[in-house]
Amino acid sequence: MIDSVGPVVPTSGTLRPVPLTAARLTGGFWGRRQAVNSTDTLAHCFAWMRREGWAGNFTASPTERRGREFADSEIYKLTEALCWDSVRNDHTAEIAELAGLARSAQAPDGYLSTAYGRPGQPPRYHDLNFGHELYCAGHLLQAAAAAARTGASPELVDVARRAADHICTEFADGGNPGVCGHPEIEPGLVELYRVTGEERYLDQARRFVERRGHRSLPEHEFGWAYFQDDVPVRKAEVFRGHAVRALYLAMGAVDVAVETGDGELLSAVQRQFDRTLSRRTYLTGGMGSRHLDESFGDDFVLPADRSYVETCAGVATVMLAHRLLLATGETRYGDIVERVLFNVIATAVADDGRSFFYANTLHQRTPTVIVPTDRPQLRFGGGPRAPWFEVSCCLPNVGRLLASLETYLVTENDAGAQVHQYADLDVTAGGLGLEMRTYYPDEGSVTITVTDPGPAGSSSPARELTLRVPAWAAGATLTENGSTRPVHPGQVRVARRFTPGETLRLDLPVRPRWTFPDPRIDAVRGCVAVEAGPLVMCAESVDLETPSADLDSLAVDTSVAPEDGAVKGWFIPSADRPWPYGSEFESGPRSPRVVPLIPYHRWARRGPTTMRVWLPTTPP
Amino acid sequence: MIDSVGPVVPTSGTLRPVPLTAARLTGGFWGRRQAVNSTDTLAHCFAWMRREGWAGNFTASPTERRGREFADSEIYKLTEALCWDSVRNDHTAEIAELAGLARSAQAPDGYLSTAYGRPGQPPRYHDLNFGHELYCAGHLLQAAAAAARTGASPELVDVARRAADHICTEFADGGNPGVCGHPEIEPGLVELYRVTGEERYLDQARRFVERRGHRSLPEHEFGWAYFQDDVPVRKAEVFRGHAVRALYLAMGAVDVAVETGDGELLSAVQRQFDRTLSRRTYLTGGMGSRHLDESFGDDFVLPADRSYVETCAGVATVMLAHRLLLATGETRYGDIVERVLFNVIATAVADDGRSFFYANTLHQRTPTVIVPTDRPQLRFGGGPRAPWFEVSCCLPNVGRLLASLETYLVTENDAGAQVHQYADLDVTAGGLGLEMRTYYPDEGSVTITVTDPGPAGSSSPARELTLRVPAWAAGATLTENGSTRPVHPGQVRVARRFTPGETLRLDLPVRPRWTFPDPRIDAVRGCVAVEAGPLVMCAESVDLETPSADLDSLAVDTSVAPEDGAVKGWFIPSADRPWPYGSEFESGPRSPRVVPLIPYHRWARRGPTTMRVWLPTTPP
Repeated sequence: MIDSVGPVVPTSGTLRPVPLTAARLTGGFWGRRQAVNSTDTLAHCFAWMRREGWAGNFTASPTERRGREFADSEIYKLTEALCWDSVRNDHTAEIAELAGLARSAQAPDGYLSTAYGRPGQPPRYHDLNFGHELYCAGHLLQAAAAAARTGASPELVDVARRAADHICTEFADGGNPGVCGHPEIEPGLVELYRVTGEERYLDQARRFVERRGHRSLPEHEFGWAYFQDDVPVRKAEVFRGHAVRALYLAMGAVDVAVETGDGELLSAVQRQFDRTLSRRTYLTGGMGSRHLDESFGDDFVLPADRSYVETCAGVATVMLAHRLLLATGETRYGDIVERVLFNVIATAVADDGRSFFYANTLHQRTPTVIVPTDRPQLRFGGGPRAPWFEVSCCLPNVGRLLASLETYLVTENDAGAQVHQYADLDVTAGGLGLEMRTYYPDEGSVTITVTDPGPAGSSSPARELTLRVPAWAAGATLTENGSTRPVHPGQVRVARRFTPGETLRLDLPVRPRWTFPDPRIDAVRGCVAVEAGPLVMCAESVDLETPSADLDSLAVDTSVAPEDGAVKGWFIPSADRPWPYGSEFESGPRSPRVVPLIPYHRWARRGPTTMRVWLPTTPP
Repeated sequence: MIDSVGPVVPTSGTLRPVPLTAARLTGGFWGRRQAVNSTDTLAHCFAWMRREGWAGNFTASPTERRGREFADSEIYKLTEALCWDSVRNDHTAEIAELAGLARSAQAPDGYLSTAYGRPGQPPRYHDLNFGHELYCAGHLLQAAAAAARTGASPELVDVARRAADHICTEFADGGNPGVCGHPEIEPGLVELYRVTGEERYLDQARRFVERRGHRSLPEHEFGWAYFQDDVPVRKAEVFRGHAVRALYLAMGAVDVAVETGDGELLSAVQRQFDRTLSRRTYLTGGMGSRHLDESFGDDFVLPADRSYVETCAGVATVMLAHRLLLATGETRYGDIVERVLFNVIATAVADDGRSFFYANTLHQRTPTVIVPTDRPQLRFGGGPRAPWFEVSCCLPNVGRLLASLETYLVTENDAGAQVHQYADLDVTAGGLGLEMRTYYPDEGSVTITVTDPGPAGSSSPARELTLRVPAWAAGATLTENGSTRPVHPGQVRVARRFTPGETLRLDLPVRPRWTFPDPRIDAVRGCVAVEAGPLVMCAESVDLETPSADLDSLAVDTSVAPEDGAVKGWFIPSADRPWPYGSEFESGPRSPRVVPLIPYHRWARRGPTTMRVWLPTTPP
């Protein structure tokens, strides 16, 4: 097997992931966040999982089990995160404990769930819609892949193999013909196949992918689309239904496609992702607009207020786009990874790593509130950052992403290295040693020092260093050997022999710019947003002199270029009328106003506030 | 007791309801709908309630009960509707059967629920949040008030008294201190007080109203506002939480205020209703924008696509506004009654009275679908008109409204009659016999013939005939005695001795007009609607030559007055882009286009279609 230290190690594809052991975030925007993740978030998660009984479920009596039906999966997400982080920090004891918990609850035939199948519990697989057994198993398998690749826990790999063997037997052709209401087993099986070489797991993943879309799950209020059981994966045109479910399924389909050489299946997912980006994605890269069923809305239904944008959907978008990037090498996948990282992932988690948004609205109408920290929030589908929610998938999910973040930044192939994301990173990739330093995204300059140009000598091959130029970065330049030249959105490739210690500098124009929406997005018609480099900006009421409600009485002047940290506009008060519809609306006297802006990911960090990303341009 | 035949007969107030026995719809817009309700809808409801087991629950064994926890209430709503309709049609057998069902399930101490308290069922009142026992009882009491006033079923009155006595004992001060998660017992108790004179019922209603708002219900994901248990009724500023719950509670609060002379409580509800109309109501008069919890959104969050607008909330808005109209005589309450009747109630029900919308969106993005008619729809919170839903409160609720519709059209006081709504109606009110004829709302002319001017002779007092002039009706005229004069929005009062057979004619300008939204309603910024008289208009894709998606590529020209049945505009095609946000959007070549319009209440009656009420004005 070809394998490496990191999530997603396909046996084929255009690009290869760089092992976590060959890359190190040294600081900067992401280095700080990864450090907080290591030192605080993972421990915070473990503490809450103990406190809420989710860890204890593995050893508790069957009738004393606590939490929702998918609570086991949080344990596995945390385990996966700890395994990835073990390349930097010692988590031997925690990982051993967690692997031991998993083993202790595993049935003799390999079945593993704390919620079903034991005396006093509902039977196994009696509720495929919402039982989440295979979903949990999928996360177990991904955790085991992390354990295998990092060497952190042979025990967990063994538990996962036995669980996967059970699933392959139970859900074989001629056996249980079902699929799980929540996809995740599919990428889990492929990842376990990748680390074990067991073809049976890949076969079963393919089987689950193909089975879905035939309405085999019971009818439900949310419709079959909720579970992606409405249309087969190969035939669907767009992502639909529950956003995390849709994205996890797509991840599994890409994994199956790549491992089986199934170009049709890969194209199907690409087509769906393209259309989803074109019609069903927020400016932040966030996906899923509906609170009711945490799902994608119809095309162009992207309300800013009450936008759902579950943090987990952001994690899944990064994971899916990364898979497509590895498979195809197309830089546009790097663009969406960047957008989601800076505007969903960085937004979701508090600076101390100990509270988080479950949903990420683009417009907060009523001031955010401070939540009690002594109990989990019941209202998980929205609201302020909270230490824990009744459903707390998002924080451990971000945990495993940040713990393996280097994977998403740089790739390699036989020709050289590809830098997709800009960060303070030391990395060895494609035969090159690189030291990248930047204040990105606050500043647009990125220097890359070639610390190791590869084998020396006149017969050594030229190396390629490929840099992604973001789609928004018109006017970017590359400086090498003292000369500066324009580079265009897409990518720039430097192919030559490098000199030890030489430096290249990419300058990306991160000055603020106006961004207008597709006219078919009704929710933000007549509005404009400001972006600065990869950052979506927003206005917060805490920065206004006048009361918070005034955010709804501001209009901006797009004839003046936005400046760093502010745009020009007007304050136009609106008085209530008995009936808010009529033949005309007189507005009050407009007064000029400077509207301060901050990066969206910084919002809700300075006390109660309202917030808008989309700013009206047309005065009433 | 002062009593009358009809729902809501307060013992004090500015205006008095006209008995159903003194009014008759003879045809026209509402006469046809009431007739279909009588002949088809009520039977259709009863058939589905039998089929789904909701009727059978009253005699089934406790463990065989079917349907949701509030299914009993549908039986009571149907019973109430049949009682009101019994003033026109014979429903003796059905009412006797339904009253017998209720009696058969009543416990010796008066408790009545098919879902709780019997062997094999959960205990009584163990889940006040969602048990709905008092909610169901409230509907029983309202049905009993209908039975009492129409004389349709003394048996049902007896059952209701015993149920109410049980509740007064159980929830007395010093007893169970709770309130029900779903208000409705409050107006039910007051109505039963009105027909029985039993003060205890009024006291208990007042107690329930005062108890709410102190967070006595268990914490829930949706928050205490969902149950209106966040803020006491007297202190709240606006309706919030679950829309039907909020409106039913307000109905009960008005009833208590009127019967106890509590001006502060009445003012509190008026204040909340005013602010709700000003900030949280759709153009159609519909209330409740959120699917997740069927609730009011924040101020000005009124998305057109996926607007929820539960039909039951429309019914409740009419019932609440009617109560406030009776209490205060203010014509603005007649305005909202009219708006909701023509744009929510008339929209919800199919022409044959046998299918209905549960939710009433103002923007349908994907073509409506035909639903199977052989089983209830699981997805009750939206979608196309369906014969029945898993939760089917709306159709029997509309049934009881239409069966008592005359109540909402004309009132009386010692001085004369007040006509609030225009319809083909024969009525005796305020000492006057009136025959109203009109093609309203398709045409704006209403003739009222005085068939009985009251006592003759020079000593007989003058009579007042008061006509509501809708708020939108600038330019209205009144013609009497051959002369025509302008009348202004609000009301016009004619106070004199009338001549037998004389005719007055009110002419309301129903030509189409542009209607613009409050600039703070983000969802419809840059859009305009067309209204014609009381009717909200809409565009349907079935009326376009081009494919349905084109509704999203139309913009209208507000510099040209809207015409009957159409507005002028442009077709401006938008091509998909890989990313739907950018520095500018080029639109395709615009071509002039006539956009046909129909009344919103007629939409989705001609096969699969998309639809919009709000039409973009600003070409991309």
